[in-house]
Parts: sequence; C-alpha cells; structure tokens
Amino acid sequence: MRALVSRINRELAATPRPSLALKSLGSRFSHHHHDSPTKKEKKSSYILGPDLPDIWSPPRSTPPCPPPSQTPVDFELIPTIIDGKSIADEIRSGIVKEVYQMKESISKVPGLAVVLVGQRRDSQTYVRHKIKACQEVGIRSLTAELPDDCPEDEVVNTVSSFNEDPSIHGILVQLPLPQVISLTILEPLFIPCAAKACIELLLRSGVDLKGKNVAVIGRSKVVGLPLSLLLQRHHATVSIIHAFTKNPEDITRGADIVISAAGVANLVRGSWLKKGTIVIDVGTNPIEDPSSEHGYYLSGDVCYEEALQVVSAITPVPGGVGPVTIAVLLSNTLDSAKRAYGLS
Amino acid sequence: MRALVSRINRELAATPRPSLALKSLGSRFSHHHHDSPTKKEKKSSYILGPDLPDIWSPPRSTPPCPPPSQTPVDFELIPTIIDGKSIADEIRSGIVKEVYQMKESISKVPGLAVVLVGQRRDSQTYVRHKIKACQEVGIRSLTAELPDDCPEDEVVNTVSSFNEDPSIHGILVQLPLPQVISLTILEPLFIPCAAKACIELLLRSGVDLKGKNVAVIGRSKVVGLPLSLLLQRHHATVSIIHAFTKNPEDITRGADIVISAAGVANLVRGSWLKKGTIVIDVGTNPIEDPSSEHGYYLSGDVCYEEALQVVSAITPVPGGVGPVTIAVLLSNTLDSAKRAYGLS
Repeated sequence: MRALVSRINRELAATPRPSLALKSLGSRFSHHHHDSPTKKEKKSSYILGPDLPDIWSPPRSTPPCPPPSQTPVDFELIPTIIDGKSIADEIRSGIVKEVYQMKESISKVPGLAVVLVGQRRDSQTYVRHKIKACQEVGIRSLTAELPDDCPEDEVVNTVSSFNEDPSIHGILVQLPLPQVISLTILEPLFIPCAAKACIELLLRSGVDLKGKNVAVIGRSKVVGLPLSLLLQRHHATVSIIHAFTKNPEDITRGADIVISAAGVANLVRGSWLKKGTIVIDVGTNPIEDPSSEHGYYLSGDVCYEEALQVVSAITPVPGGVGPVTIAVLLSNTLDSAKRAYGLS
Repeated sequence: MRALVSRINRELAATPRPSLALKSLGSRFSHHHHDSPTKKEKKSSYILGPDLPDIWSPPRSTPPCPPPSQTPVDFELIPTIIDGKSIADEIRSGIVKEVYQMKESISKVPGLAVVLVGQRRDSQTYVRHKIKACQEVGIRSLTAELPDDCPEDEVVNTVSSFNEDPSIHGILVQLPLPQVISLTILEPLFIPCAAKACIELLLRSGVDLKGKNVAVIGRSKVVGLPLSLLLQRHHATVSIIHAFTKNPEDITRGADIVISAAGVANLVRGSWLKKGTIVIDVGTNPIEDPSSEHGYYLSGDVCYEEALQVVSAITPVPGGVGPVTIAVLLSNTLDSAKRAYGLS
C-alpha cells in the first residue's frame, strides 16, 4: 500500500507573490472556500485551517516613511545589513556539491516541476528566476504552462502526473492562480520555504534564538503560522501579531527580533522597534514609481530608513529573504530527491 | 477509494494525566522517539512535530503560595469563579438531547471506545469517570483493558479494530501509556479536548476574544500549541510562554487573559497578573497531602489565593477546565457519529 504521506513545500518567492511547491504521493487536493473562521471550524477541525482573514488598517503613524537612503544613519549604532544573497550563495554551494555527488554515485539528479497558469508577466519572470536557479545548481527542471482559462481539474491533473513521475521531487505551482482555481493542500512534509528562509537568515547570521522574544507580524499559512512554530522549535518566545491586534507597537517594542510578513508597505515604523533589535522583513510590496524601469519598486513591510536608526541588524528588500527563499526551495527539492533515492 | 482522512481527538482529562482519543479511518500510527528538536527537524518536517522538551525551573518567587481560602479577598474587585461544572452541564444537556434525537430518528447512538493499558489506579479512576459521563448522556462505551507489558503492536491492533467498527465514533487511549509504548498520530480532525474546553469556558463566560492579548503558558501538542492556534482563529493576539522564556512575568502582566497549561503547581503568582485579568488554569498537579483522603490534593498552575486578589475571573482546580474537557470529549464523539451517519 502506498504511504499515506504527501510531500508539500510551500514557498514565498522573492517577489510580492507567493508560490506553492509541493510533491504529493497521494491526491490531496480539495476545494477551498474562505468561510468565516467559526463556520470553517464546524466543517473541519484541522488545526491548521485556511488563512485567517486579515485586512490591515493603513499605517497609523502620520509622517511618511522616508524613501531609501535619505536619512543619515546614527553612527553610534552601525546596523548590520543581513546579506540574503551571500547567505543564499552559501546554501547553494552546499547544494551544488550534493547534487554533483548524487550524479556521480547513482547517476540521478533532483527534479523540480514548475506549473505556471496564465500569462502574468511577473509570474513568468519569477518562474524564469527559479528555473535559472535550478540550472545553476544542477537540478533538472520541467515547466508546464497552462492557459488562463484552464479548469481546476487540469491543474490538478498536471500536478498529479508530475507526482507520478519518479524523476520529479518537487512541484511548484506559481501563485497567484487565476481566481477560479484554488488548491488546498494538507499535511506539509516540507516546511514552507519563506518561513525556513527566515530561520536560516537568523541562524546563519549567528543569532541564538533560544529564549529570545520574537514578534511575528502576520499569520498566513505560508509564512507567519509555520514561522511561529519553527521559532518555538528553536525555543524562542513568540507573539503573533495580526490585523486585529490592538497594540502591535507595544508588542514589537518588547521584542528582541521582529519578523514582518504582513504584506503592508511601511507598516512597521522606527518607533515600533527597540534599540538594538533585529528585523527580518519578509514583505515585498510593489510601490508604483513611474521613474523606475518596470514602473514600480519593491518595498518591505518595514520603514527601512527609520529602522536603520534603531536596529542592530536588518534584511533589505530586495536582497534579504527573497534569495534565501529560492535557495531553500532548491534545498527542499534536493532533500526530497535524497529521500526518494534512499540517500541519507 | 477510502478517504485519506483520519479522525483524531486528543484529550487532556480532568486529571494530571492527559488522555488521547482518536478515531482513525486509515492506519496512521508510527513510532515516536523524543529526539532533540534539531535532529527531529531533519528527519521529518511536519509543522506540528513532537512535544518540545520543557523542564520548568522551580517558581522564582520565594514566599510560598498560601493554601486555599486563607487569604482574604480584596472586595474592591470581586472575582468571578468560572464554574466549569455548570458550563459542562450546559454542554452535556445539549448532547443528551441530540443523542436522543439520533436514537429516535435512525436507531443509532454514538459509541466511544476506551483503551486502558496497565493497572494504574489513577488511570482506572479517570476511565471510570469517562464511562460514567458517556452513560449519563446516552453514548455507548466499550473498554479494552490491556496488560502493562502489552507490546505496542497489540495496542495498535486494538485501536485498529475499534477503528473498523462502524458503531464506534471515537477512540480514547488513556494516558500515560507504559514507557515502552508511544504513539504518534497525524492529522488531527478533532481539536484536542482540553484546548477546546478553554475556548468554551471563555466564550460561554461571555468573553470576546477578538483583539485580546492572551498569554498561553506551555506549548504541548495536547494543549498549548492547539490552543494558541484556536485563539488566533478567534482573532486573539497570542504569546506562547515556555520553559525557555526569559521574562514570563512581563508577558503575562501584559495579557488580558492568561491560560496556563505548564503542569507546574503554583508557577503563576499573583504578581504575574495585571488587575482585572482573566485566568484559565489547565494545570492539575497532584500535591502530596497525608491529611487528604487519597494522600494528595490537586493544585492548578496558578497560585489561586494570590490570583483571587487581582483577577476579574478565574477557573478553580478542580471544577474548572476538567469537567468541560470531558464534556468536549462527549461532544466530539457525538459530532463524529453525526458525520458517520450523514446527519448535519
């Protein structure tokens, strides 16, 4: 009998749009409707239900967040800019080595399938980045492109057939899917990539999480919720802030580490942070800007220039959580392949 | 094909010992070893892993917690003693009605199987209480008693055969099991009874959880962890305190509601609580007392007499969370039966 296990791997890409990666050994898709939590609770009592609804009110502080690099840094405290690219490189160089060894010893390489539904240009760009990242470490990648009006069944069938393919060890469904399609996946065997990326960034920057007070802003199933559980595994004391939290500033000001994954540009102001805190900014919010090449630039959840005056370390956007998330996607695909081939 | 769903129902009894109730449609047992979290994380990446290790240091405050009823209550603030028995009665009277209706309409009643391994006298007592509770609401119960040295296989087989029995809608494995046996269950479909009992106690006492700051003390899979997720579904802002938390008092003093499930007698002192806070005490810690009938009495995690001076409402131990937990067990069994028989 087939193992009743599904391998799943959700990922928030280095982009304003999360992506979903999974490798399922059993069919575990179901339709997903956003019920009110109470209603949902009656229908299904899974501990990890659907994302809870969060509409964040506009940032309360009135003065606008200064644009990057216009405020002088307080040189009493020179903050560390946590370099996501170099941490990603560190992870990827380990992957390159392991993929090479796998190829030498059993003539196999890990395989990642990417499912892209529709013609969104941003999604196409992100998929291209991921395929390139696979190529760079020797992971084989396959892409299935489906039309915008593709029925949900067809997406599921595409995923299922990748799932039957023993040379594929991870399946990534690029999000957002067209509105008509929604998938709920159960039983994650892999930790969502963006959540794991936050942990990697902290640990590889030498931060000891044990006993630290961590404020996690946002409670999505892709980042906030799994992150809060991961942080607890590292014995951090976690407070989870969401749109209904009455005094988010008070909680963040008590935190040694603030991790924001709310998806609200400049939500976290300098005044929310205590001196010497560490900030991980998962937000990648597009801000319209006619003067920039693509008509927008990316802003984090944290008002970066204000935070620089206060923090001891911070991840920039872009160049922080994003590249590490992609490295974790590659790492998860490698781990899945190792498991499939019985390698330790 | 059989639905890939398992029904599970964990329960912390009205006792110092948690029990486990489950109804599984598929075999989902696996061996369970307590690895270090890091090691475990490498082996399996399930979001809800095993319980994290917590050894609480002895309470920091030096003056002993006064025994019950020796300290005069501050009559400026007369606290509400949340009566678990009457809330349990409220839940149970609804169950009685529904079981009666089920019997009238389809000539079936819900069935609960209880598995008791070994000869512990306390476990025997708790099982007797649960069977009595079933009888009182018209739920049929079956008990399997297995010897102390019973191999793990036999426990699993017993559970599996109850699982095949269509007249059984819940299976409760009384904990603790003898050391050699340990079961890990995946995919809870039911919310653990004690966690749900805390929510019931609050909601049925008229507390609106939305936006409230809640400190949860303890992060076990049976209470603290699911409770923190449930509270978030009700839009509370949750901070999870555990043995590695550096400043538990500071966090609890910021909380509108404090729920303690640490299993440490008198851990939470009056000084940990802000004026007007609400306390739910899940702890049921046996304290040796030669003068009492059974040689011990039960103490909560909260120093009750000190708390009475400060809180606006509190659950006593015993008579608080315990009876409601049993009522939730009955309610879960009823819900499972309704699902099995296609009743709404």
